[in-house]
Amino acid sequence: MLNFIAIDKILMNALAEDIGNGDITTNSAIPPDKVIRGKYIAKENGIICGIDIVKRVFTLLDPDVTVRVSCGDGVYAEKGTTIAEISGNARSILIGERVSLNFLQHLSGISTYTKACVDKIAGTKAIIVDTRKTMPGLRVLEKYAVKTGGGRNHRHNLSDGILIKDNHILSAGGIRAAVDAVRNNAPHTLKIEVEVENMAMVREVLDCHVDIIMLDNMSIEEMKNAVDFIGGRALVEASGNMGEKDLLDVARTGVDIISIGALTHSTRALDISLRFQQ
Amino acid sequence: MLNFIAIDKILMNALAEDIGNGDITTNSAIPPDKVIRGKYIAKENGIICGIDIVKRVFTLLDPDVTVRVSCGDGVYAEKGTTIAEISGNARSILIGERVSLNFLQHLSGISTYTKACVDKIAGTKAIIVDTRKTMPGLRVLEKYAVKTGGGRNHRHNLSDGILIKDNHILSAGGIRAAVDAVRNNAPHTLKIEVEVENMAMVREVLDCHVDIIMLDNMSIEEMKNAVDFIGGRALVEASGNMGEKDLLDVARTGVDIISIGALTHSTRALDISLRFQQ
Amino acid sequence: MLNFIAIDKILMNALAEDIGNGDITTNSAIPPDKVIRGKYIAKENGIICGIDIVKRVFTLLDPDVTVRVSCGDGVYAEKGTTIAEISGNARSILIGERVSLNFLQHLSGISTYTKACVDKIAGTKAIIVDTRKTMPGLRVLEKYAVKTGGGRNHRHNLSDGILIKDNHILSAGGIRAAVDAVRNNAPHTLKIEVEVENMAMVREVLDCHVDIIMLDNMSIEEMKNAVDFIGGRALVEASGNMGEKDLLDVARTGVDIISIGALTHSTRALDISLRFQQ
Amino acid sequence: MLNFIAIDKILMNALAEDIGNGDITTNSAIPPDKVIRGKYIAKENGIICGIDIVKRVFTLLDPDVTVRVSCGDGVYAEKGTTIAEISGNARSILIGERVSLNFLQHLSGISTYTKACVDKIAGTKAIIVDTRKTMPGLRVLEKYAVKTGGGRNHRHNLSDGILIKDNHILSAGGIRAAVDAVRNNAPHTLKIEVEVENMAMVREVLDCHVDIIMLDNMSIEEMKNAVDFIGGRALVEASGNMGEKDLLDVARTGVDIISIGALTHSTRALDISLRFQQ
Amino acid sequence: MLNFIAIDKILMNALAEDIGNGDITTNSAIPPDKVIRGKYIAKENGIICGIDIVKRVFTLLDPDVTVRVSCGDGVYAEKGTTIAEISGNARSILIGERVSLNFLQHLSGISTYTKACVDKIAGTKAIIVDTRKTMPGLRVLEKYAVKTGGGRNHRHNLSDGILIKDNHILSAGGIRAAVDAVRNNAPHTLKIEVEVENMAMVREVLDCHVDIIMLDNMSIEEMKNAVDFIGGRALVEASGNMGEKDLLDVARTGVDIISIGALTHSTRALDISLRFQQ
Amino acid sequence: MLNFIAIDKILMNALAEDIGNGDITTNSAIPPDKVIRGKYIAKENGIICGIDIVKRVFTLLDPDVTVRVSCGDGVYAEKGTTIAEISGNARSILIGERVSLNFLQHLSGISTYTKACVDKIAGTKAIIVDTRKTMPGLRVLEKYAVKTGGGRNHRHNLSDGILIKDNHILSAGGIRAAVDAVRNNAPHTLKIEVEVENMAMVREVLDCHVDIIMLDNMSIEEMKNAVDFIGGRALVEASGNMGEKDLLDVARTGVDIISIGALTHSTRALDISLRFQQ
Repeated sequence: MLNFIAIDKILMNALAEDIGNGDITTNSAIPPDKVIRGKYIAKENGIICGIDIVKRVFTLLDPDVTVRVSCGDGVYAEKGTTIAEISGNARSILIGERVSLNFLQHLSGISTYTKACVDKIAGTKAIIVDTRKTMPGLRVLEKYAVKTGGGRNHRHNLSDGILIKDNHILSAGGIRAAVDAVRNNAPHTLKIEVEVENMAMVREVLDCHVDIIMLDNMSIEEMKNAVDFIGGRALVEASGNMGEKDLLDVARTGVDIISIGALTHSTRALDISLRFQQ
Repeated sequence: MLNFIAIDKILMNALAEDIGNGDITTNSAIPPDKVIRGKYIAKENGIICGIDIVKRVFTLLDPDVTVRVSCGDGVYAEKGTTIAEISGNARSILIGERVSLNFLQHLSGISTYTKACVDKIAGTKAIIVDTRKTMPGLRVLEKYAVKTGGGRNHRHNLSDGILIKDNHILSAGGIRAAVDAVRNNAPHTLKIEVEVENMAMVREVLDCHVDIIMLDNMSIEEMKNAVDFIGGRALVEASGNMGEKDLLDVARTGVDIISIGALTHSTRALDISLRFQQ
Repeated sequence: MLNFIAIDKILMNALAEDIGNGDITTNSAIPPDKVIRGKYIAKENGIICGIDIVKRVFTLLDPDVTVRVSCGDGVYAEKGTTIAEISGNARSILIGERVSLNFLQHLSGISTYTKACVDKIAGTKAIIVDTRKTMPGLRVLEKYAVKTGGGRNHRHNLSDGILIKDNHILSAGGIRAAVDAVRNNAPHTLKIEVEVENMAMVREVLDCHVDIIMLDNMSIEEMKNAVDFIGGRALVEASGNMGEKDLLDVARTGVDIISIGALTHSTRALDISLRFQQ
Repeated sequence: MLNFIAIDKILMNALAEDIGNGDITTNSAIPPDKVIRGKYIAKENGIICGIDIVKRVFTLLDPDVTVRVSCGDGVYAEKGTTIAEISGNARSILIGERVSLNFLQHLSGISTYTKACVDKIAGTKAIIVDTRKTMPGLRVLEKYAVKTGGGRNHRHNLSDGILIKDNHILSAGGIRAAVDAVRNNAPHTLKIEVEVENMAMVREVLDCHVDIIMLDNMSIEEMKNAVDFIGGRALVEASGNMGEKDLLDVARTGVDIISIGALTHSTRALDISLRFQQ
Repeated sequence: MLNFIAIDKILMNALAEDIGNGDITTNSAIPPDKVIRGKYIAKENGIICGIDIVKRVFTLLDPDVTVRVSCGDGVYAEKGTTIAEISGNARSILIGERVSLNFLQHLSGISTYTKACVDKIAGTKAIIVDTRKTMPGLRVLEKYAVKTGGGRNHRHNLSDGILIKDNHILSAGGIRAAVDAVRNNAPHTLKIEVEVENMAMVREVLDCHVDIIMLDNMSIEEMKNAVDFIGGRALVEASGNMGEKDLLDVARTGVDIISIGALTHSTRALDISLRFQQ
Repeated sequence: MLNFIAIDKILMNALAEDIGNGDITTNSAIPPDKVIRGKYIAKENGIICGIDIVKRVFTLLDPDVTVRVSCGDGVYAEKGTTIAEISGNARSILIGERVSLNFLQHLSGISTYTKACVDKIAGTKAIIVDTRKTMPGLRVLEKYAVKTGGGRNHRHNLSDGILIKDNHILSAGGIRAAVDAVRNNAPHTLKIEVEVENMAMVREVLDCHVDIIMLDNMSIEEMKNAVDFIGGRALVEASGNMGEKDLLDVARTGVDIISIGALTHSTRALDISLRFQQ
């Protein structure tokens, strides 16, 4: 699932950031040939994500370290569960410990939160998607974590999706001008999405035959009216501080998609620790 | 304060991540010479951090965009406050909008949370410090945000501080073995810190004349006993899920330092938006 | 139009490749302060593309060199036309000459060829688009050249468009399996395109409600039948050695899109030279 | 022959360019453990070049994919020939397919064209060499393809050869000034080559005892005269739109070297495809 | 001991620097499958350092080359000693020969010189440490060589140690202002060191309770007086052209640390050669 | 003379190496707006080299710092001479001080030593050249320093010169086999140089019509005999621990070129300091 061509740079960068000019404590205190075993243990309930990253961190650092996974990406782990066992050179494991945990805890935090959102709207047709409100440099991993938690991905960046927002409309001189210009310039492979704030805009974008309509910061009532009016002529996406709303209410308006920035911009890490064994 | 030799790589990376092969929406819909003005506005109360990053993002993207700051790093902004005004080429501003906000919201989230922690222990001698539990690749910025919020920094990475933890002690064959080895190998410019879990260990590390003792996951009662016993013979740092404890209680035990991973591993973004003006 | 965040790396790389450890001829033979003037001259008719690259090459190499453009990107230049005048330090201009010309000649070659294709189908509704058959490392520039010549862009890479080809169908276990899997996993922002080789496949993909149908290596007759059968229920793209076919015949079948690999994989450079003046 | 220290960067760059944030089609449609087999097949006659690049692309992408070569670099393949067989994980092969083919088709195109040029002058003493008119970023590979096709290499860049051209002579204040300056500054390990346009210049450079004389854009008659006059006192290189001339006529003038920019700046890809097998 | 996450970049960079566009001599003259054996031989007495670098250079270049070490890092080798035997592909070994020797000779030169300094002060309590006067880009390796020679490391860079020098004191407005500012801003994990030039300054810094006092360019007499006066209240470091002083005299003043820039800024390479065997 | 396309990477790398995560001392102790002035002063006699590097270091770090040069590259400075004056932000200057000095001292050390060698052979026809025995990563600068000191450059790397050494001859199966293979494969723009150890080899390489003969580790007597025998039929280069020989004796044998590894592998830094002024 993960393409290490892109991800290895992120991991190497993270290792360089944490190792600096070498782990003074470890290299001073631990004999070079000392071998140890340890366990990654969940200290609270959650959906695990990033265990392949943990493995890859050690492949990059020391290919002789082995990581045996008992709880793969997407699996629900209860507090106390052993997620993986690690064994190998003590220095290597100590040097990679923090970096591996930083990825694992952050990504599992996203998966766990995403899964909670998905569960809230179970039974409706809506899907939960992410946004571009991600930690700079980590987007490809965070979007993977959203999928691992049962969510889906919105566009990855400015070149693989079209979203005409309020600032575009204002700068382009109106909705039709913006949509026409995009239709004449953008690849035919991309759908056209427009953000609207009220029913007047909904009517206008429908006249432009756009593919997706994003309802931004509307009330439940307004969303419901918009969905009814659109009547299947376009996909409908609900957006705007969704992290603070009752997602089931939103989903019941009949929207197809709910996009939630908080999935990635305000994530709590899942508590996971690495315990050495004697 | 910020050294762009290191930071430019982070910013360029973030821009490349978000721009991909070009902003199709903007480049299609907006005339190339369109000029606009806009405001960064706080949508909730908080300590602003990252406004120099916003400026630098646009310097890298289009040096002709101007950002006039009215609310610099470290300033408390109430909801509705204009943090900065931006003007220049509409395409450039639209292309840099999300990246600039992602940094500004995340760093301001850290500063705001740090400030809340610092305020809680006002009047005590303790300081609030961060940890290495940071977003991979963003540590230098996150630690800057902690300082901006009134906190202080623990070591940046494995090479600029010495911290002997439980796993080191276990692998090294005991506290004294670990401390002696470090003392004989590490630069004389670094203090030696050891993590302890109980009073027996406190006594042992004091015998080794270490500089800093980290009390890990102790109760308030235990911490108080440890501080009294140490009696100034070493700096004392409280650690272990501090994000979930009553910080004033901790500070009142007399510890010198309280390190909180949640400052950086579980941060909520501060809500800030960029509004274009007609 | 061009986003130098991504392109500067390509240009720096090209300069490093050509300069190596320094231009021995120039640095030995030319006085350091010698100033010269020269002209970029078209030595055959064509559509110019890449003049902003020429300017940027010298901005990176020596910001004091000035390039005054008389014939911008997309303009048709007859043999003998002065495209731009350059003046500044002789060493800098000599060092950047070949790299600037390599970009200018290659991109203008693409634009010129694209324009010829577009002209051939003038009056039909079809558009000419490129493919992923590009020079490794130069795709973003080559796709810009296609647009400059009046063509349009197909997807840029594997992550910003969906194209289910014969090898996917074979590996996925059939068309419907492939389409369903993609629909359940891919972002809702992307259209779904499927490559077909005969009418049976056309019928099957129509049943799957795909957005775009690529007719691969069909005869004019077959394409016509397919277009008629599809009847507007999906966009239709003609593909397969289009560089060697009569494009007007293809366009008259009623297809919406004609994709031509030869636009970028078999391009002849446009002959352009830089002449110094005394 | 190929030094991957330099080339891996080119390949990684090409893979990153094409994969973007992941192959959505493949990762959605193909089961993760699906294994397939396929063949690289020549769809027209030509000299194969780049098969080691194909192998390396998959080594970088997925070392478990195996490529068994039946038609190595430099071998003439007739239409329909199987060049190599590939087997392994279906996702990996689909993800690397286009990049591997882009290299293989482009480099084989160069080798095939070079071989045609070399064959035309068979029986003469002249050699065919390339120029610096290459695709930016791909020079090391393109020059390898020229050698694979039986050609030889001119200098690689501005630091590993000396070539005094018209613009240098004009800026340096004459031929002798330029040659003397170069002789006093350049490494003693490099020969000195000067470009001339007429017999007067030939005489002048001979007086300067240069090692190589480049006859630029001369007629067959002029070249013959120049070669006779030079009489072995320097190597003689014919240059200037050689791609459009009768190479045998050129070679029969007695020149030692014929340099052809079109070998690399106007190459047609050799048609090669990858076919999966059931 | 060596962390290749950081070091591989240095090695790749060095290989790219030396290989350029390929080893023309070797690739032309040596059959591709030729296998050879050779020995790294000390041509003068010294402490070997960098043999793991030699191994890593060939791992990066050609993992099938084997290097069997008989004289590891830190070992004293007499003239004529075989340090390691190498065998494998002749081209690979010839291509990596110079780079491997450049590292090995330079690092062994540093270790040898360091060991000589350490030996001179044997029996005293002082330790020999390095400085930041290193070859740009090679610091991490050079500091490793100092340790290999029996020395110790001073801070690695500006962020992992605190050293208030004359220029800081002048700019900050005095010693106390500087020390207080640092104490209020720097991580609690770092000791504070101040450079002083005379006894008045020694007194002042002692009043500020700094951790380390650097005596800069003092006479033996002055150093002795300073050490006596300080009386163990701070570590004492002697500094300033120590490469030209009688180190035993310096050590006997009672200083704890002697820092010597010449260890790295004025190193003579240890003469080592690679001899092929028939 | 210096091409910053290549050199900026070296400088950025050196700055990153020394700055790490920020200059804690400076950023803590010095007010952000403090402005200072200082002087680079020669503390011993020597040839200055690297002052443009000093300027560039500050351009990269802080373009508002100004460096006014009074003693440019290649100028002889007596002890006490002011080489340049610097003024600007105190933090920026303190942060760049060490890096700028490390380059300036090292390169001036090379220029000074080279000049001493050149002076020793004044009046002979021989030139002094460098080798590939350089500090990894710094070759382009070190070779510039050799030229600044009045020396000349040998080949820069393995791709811009041909040198057949003993190990090549052994692996290739003899001198003639090696020379013929190189002549049939290498670019016609490069001279062919062969290393010889005795008169028998001199005779053999002369029969092969090579361009340059390197006399390796011969006695003065042997060199004289070889030069006489060669009699101008090839350039003659003396090599082998030339740093320890009487260069005038060597030059008087009549050799054309003397190559000295010690110019770069065993350089003593020139003592230069930066003094702030009140």
